[in-house]
Amino acid sequence: MARKAGLGGFIALSTPYVEGGEPLFRRLYRDLRQAILGGRLQAGARLPATRLLGRELGLSRNTVLAAYEQLVSEGFIEMRHRSGAFVAQNLPIALPPMRAMAASVPAPRLGRAGARSIAAARGVRSTLEAARWPGCFIAGAPDVTAFPFALWARLLARSWRNPELRVSVGGDSGGDPALRRAIADYLRESRGIACAPEHVLIVTGIRQALDLACRLLLESGDRVWMENPGYPGLRAVLAANGAEIVPVAVDEEGLDIAAGRKQAGDARLVCVAPSHQYPLGVTLSLQRRLMLLDWARDADAWVLEDDYDSEYRYAGRPLAALKSLDADNRVIYVGTLSKLLFPSLRLGYLIAPPQLAEPFRRLRAALDDQPSMVAQPALAELFRSGHLAAHVRKMRQIYAARQRALLAAAASHLDGLVTLRPDEAGLHLVGRLDGRLARRDDAELTQIARKEGIVLSALSDYDALGTGPRGLMFGYAAAAEHSVEPALRKLAEIWTR
Amino acid sequence: MARKAGLGGFIALSTPYVEGGEPLFRRLYRDLRQAILGGRLQAGARLPATRLLGRELGLSRNTVLAAYEQLVSEGFIEMRHRSGAFVAQNLPIALPPMRAMAASVPAPRLGRAGARSIAAARGVRSTLEAARWPGCFIAGAPDVTAFPFALWARLLARSWRNPELRVSVGGDSGGDPALRRAIADYLRESRGIACAPEHVLIVTGIRQALDLACRLLLESGDRVWMENPGYPGLRAVLAANGAEIVPVAVDEEGLDIAAGRKQAGDARLVCVAPSHQYPLGVTLSLQRRLMLLDWARDADAWVLEDDYDSEYRYAGRPLAALKSLDADNRVIYVGTLSKLLFPSLRLGYLIAPPQLAEPFRRLRAALDDQPSMVAQPALAELFRSGHLAAHVRKMRQIYAARQRALLAAAASHLDGLVTLRPDEAGLHLVGRLDGRLARRDDAELTQIARKEGIVLSALSDYDALGTGPRGLMFGYAAAAEHSVEPALRKLAEIWTR
Repeated sequence: MARKAGLGGFIALSTPYVEGGEPLFRRLYRDLRQAILGGRLQAGARLPATRLLGRELGLSRNTVLAAYEQLVSEGFIEMRHRSGAFVAQNLPIALPPMRAMAASVPAPRLGRAGARSIAAARGVRSTLEAARWPGCFIAGAPDVTAFPFALWARLLARSWRNPELRVSVGGDSGGDPALRRAIADYLRESRGIACAPEHVLIVTGIRQALDLACRLLLESGDRVWMENPGYPGLRAVLAANGAEIVPVAVDEEGLDIAAGRKQAGDARLVCVAPSHQYPLGVTLSLQRRLMLLDWARDADAWVLEDDYDSEYRYAGRPLAALKSLDADNRVIYVGTLSKLLFPSLRLGYLIAPPQLAEPFRRLRAALDDQPSMVAQPALAELFRSGHLAAHVRKMRQIYAARQRALLAAAASHLDGLVTLRPDEAGLHLVGRLDGRLARRDDAELTQIARKEGIVLSALSDYDALGTGPRGLMFGYAAAAEHSVEPALRKLAEIWTR
Repeated sequence: MARKAGLGGFIALSTPYVEGGEPLFRRLYRDLRQAILGGRLQAGARLPATRLLGRELGLSRNTVLAAYEQLVSEGFIEMRHRSGAFVAQNLPIALPPMRAMAASVPAPRLGRAGARSIAAARGVRSTLEAARWPGCFIAGAPDVTAFPFALWARLLARSWRNPELRVSVGGDSGGDPALRRAIADYLRESRGIACAPEHVLIVTGIRQALDLACRLLLESGDRVWMENPGYPGLRAVLAANGAEIVPVAVDEEGLDIAAGRKQAGDARLVCVAPSHQYPLGVTLSLQRRLMLLDWARDADAWVLEDDYDSEYRYAGRPLAALKSLDADNRVIYVGTLSKLLFPSLRLGYLIAPPQLAEPFRRLRAALDDQPSMVAQPALAELFRSGHLAAHVRKMRQIYAARQRALLAAAASHLDGLVTLRPDEAGLHLVGRLDGRLARRDDAELTQIARKEGIVLSALSDYDALGTGPRGLMFGYAAAAEHSVEPALRKLAEIWTR
């Protein structure tokens, strides 16, 4: 690997910066990030001016700027007015001292949240079909009405009219090679993940991915960190595998790694949604990401990265996945297409660290042969043709507008009762209880709303300890636009009656 | 429930025999069977002449004859020349004395068979695509070239062009209600199983069905009877669930229930393929079926009925499923569509006893949300339109002809080496080693064949104890017709070289 001399001498260039494949700004971004993580660029070091570095590397200034912006958004570098770009000071060289923790952690209360999660999933359709406020305000549900189903029907028909044996017999227990290639390409471009198609395993979703991971990597009784509050869908899977769930607090920087180490430093697995925590919506900070990976390496533990909605980011560029920092191959990355396309698709992907790819594939083959081929070739074509990317771009605009509309309507109708914080990403907003509602039970408020046909989730439903924040989740993605204002007015009325 | 007086007075008629719904012969068959099992018709009792009973019940003589024939084929009654029909003498009133068994049963050897099973599954496509003897002689693989894919493509497109939320969102974790209804109707007609759509759970196949059953019903260390020789695909699933596998011998009457009771009378689950045992092809006798169900009731154990290929029966009427005798609700019935349509479909169904239907559905919901809806509405339409039944009828003729061709070719080319027995059902024949091959290792013979590109399975690969029969499995369903003769000639040559 050649080391480039001069201004960019800290960059280890594997290949020269020429067009083709990955965008140039992203390659530069990765090389710079590697230089920071590898210590060639120290904390506080000043980076070259964009114009000078661009000239030296044969890149436009805009390309260098885009790479710097990405590094800023991920916390690797800081821009100082009139002084330029510097490597961030808060990069953790040594791990920070442990946070003082409550002495005893009660056992997780799984029943309520788990049961509600299942009930909520079954209720999605009836909420969407509800007469008065369709889609208000089911969290996590995408809007299926904007999906190009006519195109989807054509792609399905084309792939099955005269299928090769590759399609009708299948035989690759990891999934359709064409789809795995398309997913690997997509993740390289959009999430900064360098993976080979052989490391991609087609699964039905995060639950099957976690189930396979538990069966492959855990013994009964092994401890697993789960974000608290967190996605209850994972609890049943962990419980079914005999794992001991350790709920770890989430704060404004995401999962509290120091707390997790203190609670269960010997855990074997961590379930985390670094891009956009569910339900709170926070992003795991760079410092926490590095702490998590360092600990996983030292503890010989695994990290399951649940990247369930990273495509829906409305401001800034999406952060690179935790997996893109995974130098020690401890991260199992999981994404889904069911939120991008439609919920009943039930198709996602697991990106295994290279050393686990074959064991995962073999386990899947033993337990369930191969994934169904009915949807896979059409999905591969949806990626290849660019229609998937176009659909995501379209939905991003629609959802961003819906979030703005929800915020505006809430400012008018819930003022002094519920304060909704804007979110750069996701399909729902979290509302804080204020004023006359400040001391009310969030779950009770959702029950009152449900009697009027308005579905909300309470943060407490996602809280296994009963110690986390209280608040309400307003899913806006599938909410019919004309119903948002009347639904919020109705909520204000029934909550203050 | 009214009891009909006169000749048919032993029949408990819930509804009169009028057209509509289930064929009349099948309703009469079920009523007669119930009378026998319930003791209203004792062993050895004479049944009314078909003409008289038909007149009394307002049925044609042919209808009564058809019901009697079904009962004969299942061993409930016997026809004696010129004397008429009698309830069979060998109906077990008390259980027969235990068979003398070998004192010690060695632990199962799982490695070889399990590993080969996985390798075999991956090899299906390459065998079908092989240049010289395409499809010779992979066991269990259907012929996909005769499937009406153009129709399938149209049904898929139609179901997705403008889907309702029922389709695009889904939400029923048991599967598409329309498909579950179609399957319940189909099983009532074709397999004598009376089940409600709510008792049908859509699964990917027998392995997922067994996995769910293990997780719902077993504790780690529980013992499970498995047919020996038997389908190795089940072993990995049982092992992954910590079950202790008890291989139980199969003889000409099928699974040896008395042996199983002696080996592990405390087992919690039995995996059995009563219609057509894999790989030996035997049918579980009526006496054994009743013994199995009696034991399961007394031992509080469960029976997983793997009915993987009952549609492919070429002589006689298909036997009713074991599930149709399941008065005590101990049988979990599993079928698949992947063998009827094409292997990469990966869709089957589990029929739960009523009291387990909701627990199965909840477990499935917790572990994996809902089954993908991509294929389900099109499959429901395939059932409803009658195209599925037409396809099965067509394939039955094709496969019956192929079996005859294989037998004829084997008589010419393998005479004195391998004796193939005809089979009334299935997709493969079992060949016994004779003459110069009688003392050869069956697995070694398959290795020699594979070097020439001919895929055979050895019975010993399915044998966990090393005590079962030796022989070769010739799958004929997917074997190209022009290649059967030359392939057998080649086998004779290389095996006697």
